[in-house]
Amino acid sequence: MTEEISRVSQLRPARPHVVIIGGGFAGLACARSLGNAEIDVTVIDRRNHNLFQPLLYQVATAALSPADISEPIRRTLGRYRNIKVMLAEVNGVDPTTKSVRFDDGGAVSYDHLVIATGSEYNYFGHDEWRAWAPGLKTIHEARLIRQRLLVAFEKAERTDDPEEKQRLLTSVVIGGGPTGVEMAGAIAELGRFMITRDFRDLSPNHFKVILIEAAPRLLAAFPENLARYAERSLVEGGVQVLTNTPVENITKSEVIAGGRTFSTGCVVWGAGVKASPAASWLGIEGKAGGRIPVEPDLAVQGFNDIYAIGDTALGMGESGKPLAALAQVAKQQGDYLGEALKAKLLDGRAPEAFRFRDRGNTAVIGRNAAIFDFGTWQMKGRLAWLLWAMVHVYLLVNFEKRLLVSIQWIWRYATRQRGARIIDENAATQVPASTRRTET
Amino acid sequence: MTEEISRVSQLRPARPHVVIIGGGFAGLACARSLGNAEIDVTVIDRRNHNLFQPLLYQVATAALSPADISEPIRRTLGRYRNIKVMLAEVNGVDPTTKSVRFDDGGAVSYDHLVIATGSEYNYFGHDEWRAWAPGLKTIHEARLIRQRLLVAFEKAERTDDPEEKQRLLTSVVIGGGPTGVEMAGAIAELGRFMITRDFRDLSPNHFKVILIEAAPRLLAAFPENLARYAERSLVEGGVQVLTNTPVENITKSEVIAGGRTFSTGCVVWGAGVKASPAASWLGIEGKAGGRIPVEPDLAVQGFNDIYAIGDTALGMGESGKPLAALAQVAKQQGDYLGEALKAKLLDGRAPEAFRFRDRGNTAVIGRNAAIFDFGTWQMKGRLAWLLWAMVHVYLLVNFEKRLLVSIQWIWRYATRQRGARIIDENAATQVPASTRRTET
Repeated sequence: MTEEISRVSQLRPARPHVVIIGGGFAGLACARSLGNAEIDVTVIDRRNHNLFQPLLYQVATAALSPADISEPIRRTLGRYRNIKVMLAEVNGVDPTTKSVRFDDGGAVSYDHLVIATGSEYNYFGHDEWRAWAPGLKTIHEARLIRQRLLVAFEKAERTDDPEEKQRLLTSVVIGGGPTGVEMAGAIAELGRFMITRDFRDLSPNHFKVILIEAAPRLLAAFPENLARYAERSLVEGGVQVLTNTPVENITKSEVIAGGRTFSTGCVVWGAGVKASPAASWLGIEGKAGGRIPVEPDLAVQGFNDIYAIGDTALGMGESGKPLAALAQVAKQQGDYLGEALKAKLLDGRAPEAFRFRDRGNTAVIGRNAAIFDFGTWQMKGRLAWLLWAMVHVYLLVNFEKRLLVSIQWIWRYATRQRGARIIDENAATQVPASTRRTET
Repeated sequence: MTEEISRVSQLRPARPHVVIIGGGFAGLACARSLGNAEIDVTVIDRRNHNLFQPLLYQVATAALSPADISEPIRRTLGRYRNIKVMLAEVNGVDPTTKSVRFDDGGAVSYDHLVIATGSEYNYFGHDEWRAWAPGLKTIHEARLIRQRLLVAFEKAERTDDPEEKQRLLTSVVIGGGPTGVEMAGAIAELGRFMITRDFRDLSPNHFKVILIEAAPRLLAAFPENLARYAERSLVEGGVQVLTNTPVENITKSEVIAGGRTFSTGCVVWGAGVKASPAASWLGIEGKAGGRIPVEPDLAVQGFNDIYAIGDTALGMGESGKPLAALAQVAKQQGDYLGEALKAKLLDGRAPEAFRFRDRGNTAVIGRNAAIFDFGTWQMKGRLAWLLWAMVHVYLLVNFEKRLLVSIQWIWRYATRQRGARIIDENAATQVPASTRRTET
């Protein structure tokens, strides 16, 4: 039985056991590079799928389906017989007994531990805002935003009250980083299309998308000229951009920011992330938004058998500046750590320090508008948009998804239709309460 | 403003207003055939999308995404400027004032009313079973079944208790009609694949799919030899078929049927439908499972301005037997009624009686196995399966969906992979309670 073999092999002292918490870009890259090595690997995630987060905004705006951008972690790692996958929620680590604890009472022990638990949205002490302003980190949140957008339009169509109509057709996006810019651009496109094509009693004059940013300009991580281009493109697409406008409060139907009150039917939060709470598991203090400081070999400072990679780790770039919480950093760190662990555990070699190679930074504003910053050179406009689309299709996990997403994009480019405009039944109909409880 | 024009036009006595409740096969067919006629049409549905129910079992078994088989009703009807779509839940009809009431207090008045509200699963007086044994009528239910199946496998992988493992890997499908047969076959395929390919601690010996039917044989609507073939194919695929086995009770983890107790991790209900409660709106008594008896012109008996079509209507075939609750009956009735209303309202002609044309009946058991009954001749096996696939792709609503579904089927045929194996986060992670409440 495979079952027994794998159990026994974990007991053999000769075969080290690496436990990876988190199956995102960082964790999966690390697991893959340990694939089929003489090392037992266990990947633990609270979700059964990895998610291609850069395209999650397209699920939220009804352009793609969740399955187009996610894949079961088991499927991704299925070909490596030395890797086990567990669906579990970690709630603690005990470095003394070298074990990871789950919230259901279970536990698993490790020889080497890799923490790749990512980041979550930061509401800066106002967690009560989350209910009205979901972020964009999970399929659940993307569906929630899609649901609110589409329901707001349906309700607007039915109401005779012009103020209520105006409120329902006003979307507010908070945060002028790439996610906020992408969401604002995509909502503007979706709304304009639906109003002109599918609704009878809605007027484009009522439709508003407001992008709110506390800082003086959008896209702080990009050069100023690209950010200016992005803002111009957004405004041309019908988005109202408000910079220097810090958010003061969010309720079910209002956003108060910069002293003004905005009545709204749908709010999206994209205003900053913080690391997962993994630092507290280790009893250390996270820095720069809860991130775990790591050594040049990505070991957690003060430990020699625990590593941290991806958004939850605070690594240093060559310039001495902290590395940003980006997918490409996570992926490179995962690749590096897998190789480093093999060198260390199998050959007894000490690995060289991790070096980040910047592949360039990109954001998409909408149809025919994107920006690329490669440091020494830049791109913007239609060509950048085409490159953005090609890169993102290429980064999808397999050929099937690449083909499916390409077809949907080409279809959408030609028709401006959005394929996934589904309002879940439970929004508008009665689902038995017990069924509901079971699912959520 | 379009808004004002459409309002005014509804007041003009010369332009009759037809209200259609329900945007399924029947309601949409009726609306379409009234498209761009000199008639105002309002389509009311509690969902914003129509659903291609014949393929819903593929969503439940992670083969397709919800968006692949559903489309916004607004999009389907968007090109007809005389048709308005409303997202609302109807809870009553007043034939005296000729108006339809909504549960949110709204109402709309009609000149002619078409009731196309479909059917729902019948738990034969045991509605408490619904929580543990969802049917397969909505996207919500399909996702719920998918979720339970996938979570059961994940839990089975983690448990060391062999009895619990056996329970979690046992699925019970109740009802031996086409839905039950399709679900049992699809679950067997999915489970076998996942166990051999993606899990480490599960053995095929533990995996069981049990199909339970109260009657002496499966597929009562098909000739006996086709039903026997279907049963043989299911058994070859690893499904245990129990006929003459009426269900006595269903709890969270058990099904009691025919005096035996089956411990199970996932139950699916497909054991009979009843009509929507529309008969009670009209104060008449439904027959044969709550269906509304209709005249040969599909008018509800006793009314000359209210019609019923599709699953919720009880029409008579040429042989004097009631017409079955089938998609093809619904579609033909919708087409007919649209034309009949045009004849009546625009030309003052009395339409001929509705005549059902039987296009044949089909069910699919699994890879390379399906059955067709065309009355005078039959088909089964691989060729029938190919024809089944082609017919169902063709019946999808537009070219994009046809292409997307075809690609996924070809991919799946070649690799046996299932693209949509997503467990929603809220099953395994903590979603803020308030967010959860908002969505459901």
